[in-house]
Amino acid sequence: MPHIDVDKTLPGIRSLMAFRPETAKPLSALAEILLRDTEGLSPAERELIGTYVSYLNDCFYCHHSHGEIAVCYLDGDRDLVEAVRHNYKEAPISEKLKSLLQIAGKVQKSGKSVTPEDIENARQHGATDRDIHDTVLIAAAFCLFNRYVDGLASIAPQDLSTYPERARQIVEHGYGSHIYSKQAESPKPKA
Amino acid sequence: MPHIDVDKTLPGIRSLMAFRPETAKPLSALAEILLRDTEGLSPAERELIGTYVSYLNDCFYCHHSHGEIAVCYLDGDRDLVEAVRHNYKEAPISEKLKSLLQIAGKVQKSGKSVTPEDIENARQHGATDRDIHDTVLIAAAFCLFNRYVDGLASIAPQDLSTYPERARQIVEHGYGSHIYSKQAESPKPKA
Repeated sequence: MPHIDVDKTLPGIRSLMAFRPETAKPLSALAEILLRDTEGLSPAERELIGTYVSYLNDCFYCHHSHGEIAVCYLDGDRDLVEAVRHNYKEAPISEKLKSLLQIAGKVQKSGKSVTPEDIENARQHGATDRDIHDTVLIAAAFCLFNRYVDGLASIAPQDLSTYPERARQIVEHGYGSHIYSKQAESPKPKA
Repeated sequence: MPHIDVDKTLPGIRSLMAFRPETAKPLSALAEILLRDTEGLSPAERELIGTYVSYLNDCFYCHHSHGEIAVCYLDGDRDLVEAVRHNYKEAPISEKLKSLLQIAGKVQKSGKSVTPEDIENARQHGATDRDIHDTVLIAAAFCLFNRYVDGLASIAPQDLSTYPERARQIVEHGYGSHIYSKQAESPKPKA
């Protein structure tokens, strides 16, 4: 039961974005740039970092939503996403991504937890300044999204079969304002 | 010493925003809407919530920056800002703001920490759905800003006399892109 009077037919952050479109706009823009940029980290890697941080924050809606988006980018490899959630150190991913997930996990606790050794380890595995920047900001952004979603007790559908379709829409169309618009869900009537 | 190669003449988040202007834009827009909106909560109340959360997150740069902005809005009442940082329950502020700071403190820990009783308490002191929404999102946003600033070890000036001038600029001009532009610091030459 959400803490405020939002549209209960919309799940998670979408109900909050519909409640306050003024703040939805920069939040969507931030997600679009941070999670769909293809320079440096791939969208799949970016979504895996977001999924991992959301899992650490125990945000059911976010870690399932972004986990499914990662699954889409990874051609359906749900096992890999599960492996990153539960024990990324043993997951079949690059050493570079492991070093960035280590930084993301520190950021989830506190910015001050990140050490020069964490950064040096990422650099030795090929991470650039931009990769490190984006990793820290993705992890920090999910510390916002997760708190926003759970702090207002927005509805997280328990039926996991509802997440893949929404994930495909985001992979196809991005994090534009249409994702929290109800109208966007109904196709326009044919003329 | 920042973890990445940013302009070391710029402090805190301004150095990170100059490093990655693409993400700076939505972050500035979010701050502008959330912290300077005058509907419901006042800008002073919004900055006090941000200062308190930044203090809980032990982010020196953010709690001093936003504390000084709050001081500006409060006509120089630095004692009140100090009181909110250290023990808001005894501070000379409204019961409504105390109830919202209670929610913000919960969000700082985790979104799930916020209880229906916290929300009911805020309502009984006059908080609207919009006030509650904005409080949760401000607290969540500072969990991003604080982690961004400290996770990349950006420079936090230790000389507190440097904070008031920047605070006055923000109160006067807002969180526009100029706040992270070096050019904006030099007045245009007269024609």
